[in-house]
Amino acid sequence: MSCPDGVGLVAAVSGLVASWGGWLTEVSNHSDPDTGRFFMRNEIRVESLPFGIDEFRQGFLPLARRHQMDFAVRDSAVLKRVMILVSREDHCLVDLLHRWRTSELRFDLRGVISNHETTRVDVEHHQVAFHHVPIDPAQRAEGFGRLEELLDDEGVDLVVLARYMQVLPEALCERYAGRILNIHHSFLPSFSGGKPYQQAHERGVKLIGATSHFVTSDLDAGPIVEQDVVRVDHGDTVEDMVRLGRDVEKTVLARALRYVIEDRVLVNGNKTVVFR
Amino acid sequence: MSCPDGVGLVAAVSGLVASWGGWLTEVSNHSDPDTGRFFMRNEIRVESLPFGIDEFRQGFLPLARRHQMDFAVRDSAVLKRVMILVSREDHCLVDLLHRWRTSELRFDLRGVISNHETTRVDVEHHQVAFHHVPIDPAQRAEGFGRLEELLDDEGVDLVVLARYMQVLPEALCERYAGRILNIHHSFLPSFSGGKPYQQAHERGVKLIGATSHFVTSDLDAGPIVEQDVVRVDHGDTVEDMVRLGRDVEKTVLARALRYVIEDRVLVNGNKTVVFR
Amino acid sequence: MSCPDGVGLVAAVSGLVASWGGWLTEVSNHSDPDTGRFFMRNEIRVESLPFGIDEFRQGFLPLARRHQMDFAVRDSAVLKRVMILVSREDHCLVDLLHRWRTSELRFDLRGVISNHETTRVDVEHHQVAFHHVPIDPAQRAEGFGRLEELLDDEGVDLVVLARYMQVLPEALCERYAGRILNIHHSFLPSFSGGKPYQQAHERGVKLIGATSHFVTSDLDAGPIVEQDVVRVDHGDTVEDMVRLGRDVEKTVLARALRYVIEDRVLVNGNKTVVFR
Amino acid sequence: MSCPDGVGLVAAVSGLVASWGGWLTEVSNHSDPDTGRFFMRNEIRVESLPFGIDEFRQGFLPLARRHQMDFAVRDSAVLKRVMILVSREDHCLVDLLHRWRTSELRFDLRGVISNHETTRVDVEHHQVAFHHVPIDPAQRAEGFGRLEELLDDEGVDLVVLARYMQVLPEALCERYAGRILNIHHSFLPSFSGGKPYQQAHERGVKLIGATSHFVTSDLDAGPIVEQDVVRVDHGDTVEDMVRLGRDVEKTVLARALRYVIEDRVLVNGNKTVVFR
Repeated sequence: MSCPDGVGLVAAVSGLVASWGGWLTEVSNHSDPDTGRFFMRNEIRVESLPFGIDEFRQGFLPLARRHQMDFAVRDSAVLKRVMILVSREDHCLVDLLHRWRTSELRFDLRGVISNHETTRVDVEHHQVAFHHVPIDPAQRAEGFGRLEELLDDEGVDLVVLARYMQVLPEALCERYAGRILNIHHSFLPSFSGGKPYQQAHERGVKLIGATSHFVTSDLDAGPIVEQDVVRVDHGDTVEDMVRLGRDVEKTVLARALRYVIEDRVLVNGNKTVVFR
Repeated sequence: MSCPDGVGLVAAVSGLVASWGGWLTEVSNHSDPDTGRFFMRNEIRVESLPFGIDEFRQGFLPLARRHQMDFAVRDSAVLKRVMILVSREDHCLVDLLHRWRTSELRFDLRGVISNHETTRVDVEHHQVAFHHVPIDPAQRAEGFGRLEELLDDEGVDLVVLARYMQVLPEALCERYAGRILNIHHSFLPSFSGGKPYQQAHERGVKLIGATSHFVTSDLDAGPIVEQDVVRVDHGDTVEDMVRLGRDVEKTVLARALRYVIEDRVLVNGNKTVVFR
Repeated sequence: MSCPDGVGLVAAVSGLVASWGGWLTEVSNHSDPDTGRFFMRNEIRVESLPFGIDEFRQGFLPLARRHQMDFAVRDSAVLKRVMILVSREDHCLVDLLHRWRTSELRFDLRGVISNHETTRVDVEHHQVAFHHVPIDPAQRAEGFGRLEELLDDEGVDLVVLARYMQVLPEALCERYAGRILNIHHSFLPSFSGGKPYQQAHERGVKLIGATSHFVTSDLDAGPIVEQDVVRVDHGDTVEDMVRLGRDVEKTVLARALRYVIEDRVLVNGNKTVVFR
Repeated sequence: MSCPDGVGLVAAVSGLVASWGGWLTEVSNHSDPDTGRFFMRNEIRVESLPFGIDEFRQGFLPLARRHQMDFAVRDSAVLKRVMILVSREDHCLVDLLHRWRTSELRFDLRGVISNHETTRVDVEHHQVAFHHVPIDPAQRAEGFGRLEELLDDEGVDLVVLARYMQVLPEALCERYAGRILNIHHSFLPSFSGGKPYQQAHERGVKLIGATSHFVTSDLDAGPIVEQDVVRVDHGDTVEDMVRLGRDVEKTVLARALRYVIEDRVLVNGNKTVVFR
């Protein structure tokens, strides 16, 4: 939840939960002095509560109204419905499929959409639905119309762009604001846009990185969820950087996705609060 | 504070603070499933409270008793009284003196004790008291007696071993349990004891490290507060490792000291809870 | 190659290569002051040489004899024959299969051997031979006899233990000395032996790691090829450490394997020289 | 040295050195496929040579001419003459003074120039000449004229900008091209120009960094020598970033300076080759 900052907010929330016998197992909060907003995340042991999630939400509403809270109550046993979008580079996809299959990352994988056929075999090997949705430059509207339909049909909570190399239409970005997670293969804000490893090689940087962020209609400029870097040197070619970067992309996207599916990420304007 | 874990602890503490109008700016908690203990740290804006620290402590006592809490209430404006012990290697000392002088680390530096004269000039350049307390192997008791006297005279809250190469007497370790912070020049538990860089070189490790821990009578085995590492390779001699290690020692000790003086470290058996 | 250190070794080797018109693209060398040995690795552009690898070897012999060199000449187009051994934890295996399939790591994968059936489907999905070789505690000799037979039949250059949880027989370790690469799930020499994450959790370390090393008959004590670490804190359970550690294990093993298949690793007693 | 790439260069150089009995202790080379240039650095044991550095240079000239080499021969016992420039923030200066005094970094420190008086006491405590050269915005030419005079008088080989907050005149940058080393408090190319930590905070990045580079007339765009980063999160204020960044600035500048004074850095257009 988030609301205007003030005295007694932790007590108000934790007191209400305690009055129901709720056992808080994780409490995280953050006050942003720039915006004057307060952010909070609580984990409650479900068996300590005398009722279900709907009654909890009902019971929480009066307090939320009094403090003008934006809030969400989620049952961690109800998995988020996720669609993965991918193009040709499949390292992030393969990495996510393994983490999903072994339950390292727990989400409800509704399917994989690609503008290429190349990853179909791997996806179907995991008994996951594969949708080939080509994006013809001359018929982008049709392609993305089909894609949006698939997202809507599956009631997707979260779209993961696992090296999906098409720019999404503005309207789709807005409809799914805060629900599309991308991995960009540079340490943003450096080297946004195309061919970031080529750009990094030309500039002669000594570290390259990857950035996972929520997608907005402003390319590569959305709220950053997670970043990391790896060392390179003068001997590394662009191809070496691509290879070294893949490992960073995989771990950064997997970490960001973990934070998002565990509801650890709150958007704060163009930044994020990540309660790790 | 720490106490046996249970439901309603966050609410009980934050509710009491809120009933006094206290504004919590940082709330951190941890439940240890192994020991069944609950740990909590709160920061309260002092101007939001209607009374001083003694009344706060008095007012908090009944709740603490009810939940069998070990607790401490500290005024962050009252700086901890610190004594630094050092031998010949002065890089940690010089680093700490600079962080202290620029108020990056805020503590009340009561003096520096060394078994050598070498660092006197630098210490006195900072208008800090320097005490030369030689430790003659044949007269260790006298030496450490004089040292303990100095600690007691200055009412020291915290002793920092900034590369102090003498083993402290067991009785002193016990009297100052949880109040002596050491920097060991290896990634513990690897290479405890003497000449850790030599040991690391012989084993052919690819990373070397440093560990800051509370001192117990069991050499290099006390609760770890902070650690870090740096990469080395086959071309690095023991001397190179010593040099590379110095930078890790400095930053690890400085970080650990920050956590301790900001009361972010709670000892949990032979481990620590560090609310960063 | 390696030999007793002395003046003129770089000139002797590079001069001989140049006399044949050979174009050196990478030259790396290391002098070990402890052992007085000199190590060198050269990459030569094959199309710059007037003859093949056998003539090269013949032509190099006199110089090698004169300087008592241990040396090897390899054609990087001839891929190393590799067998992967795995038990139940499949993250390293899946990671290696993907790097192998995409030619990020170029080796000739002869098959996968496991003491469990669990990974068969994934291995066969990659059109790779899967051998189930159970290791019955009462009949270890039979099991490992069968395993050694498979290695010999396939003429394996390198055995990769990708989380293979059985201790190999001493005789096998010796026959394949310097040709068995293991990933151990701790930052050696800390926490060798069983359940390293459990050990790390009990000690309360602030970083956990993984180590890739050549296997010797001395458990977890062979020459280290690569290591890395990841940060943990008091809130991380043993299960969290296992999860975080997996990512380190994968990248450390993949990096070590790259060094080995590119002949970048020279064993120097119980240490390695890694010409990255 | 650097020259157009070709076959036999390692042999030609090492052969000539060997013909004089010279013992190469470190050999590093790099071929840049983009520019077709070859870069090489050799360390030779001085006592193995039958003559001094001037004769070496004379003897090397014919080979250098034949291959159109840019080359330099340096005696590592002759320390580089260094001037440090600093403004108010003194952490890099204090760090460098300590490394210099303990001979961790070996250079001939000719003095410190500042546009403020604040660091005088520390500099003079080290028996180093301190020059106060104010830069009045209305009289920049006079200020920088005085500064350039000091550099020239001391025959400075290298100028280190240890958080010097004035932009140097273009003419000075050009006269001292490749000899002015700066530390910029961001991970370039992100956040060049003023207030980088403020920019980083506004963008919500999850890592901040520092960059040491050679100064050119193009602000913050010169060849990068070294970079590093440190993790931050939503709870870190601009002031926290400034504090965390200081440690990165210190180590990055110290590492870059080590590479430069050991002649490990070769400029390759707007990039560097760093033979670590």
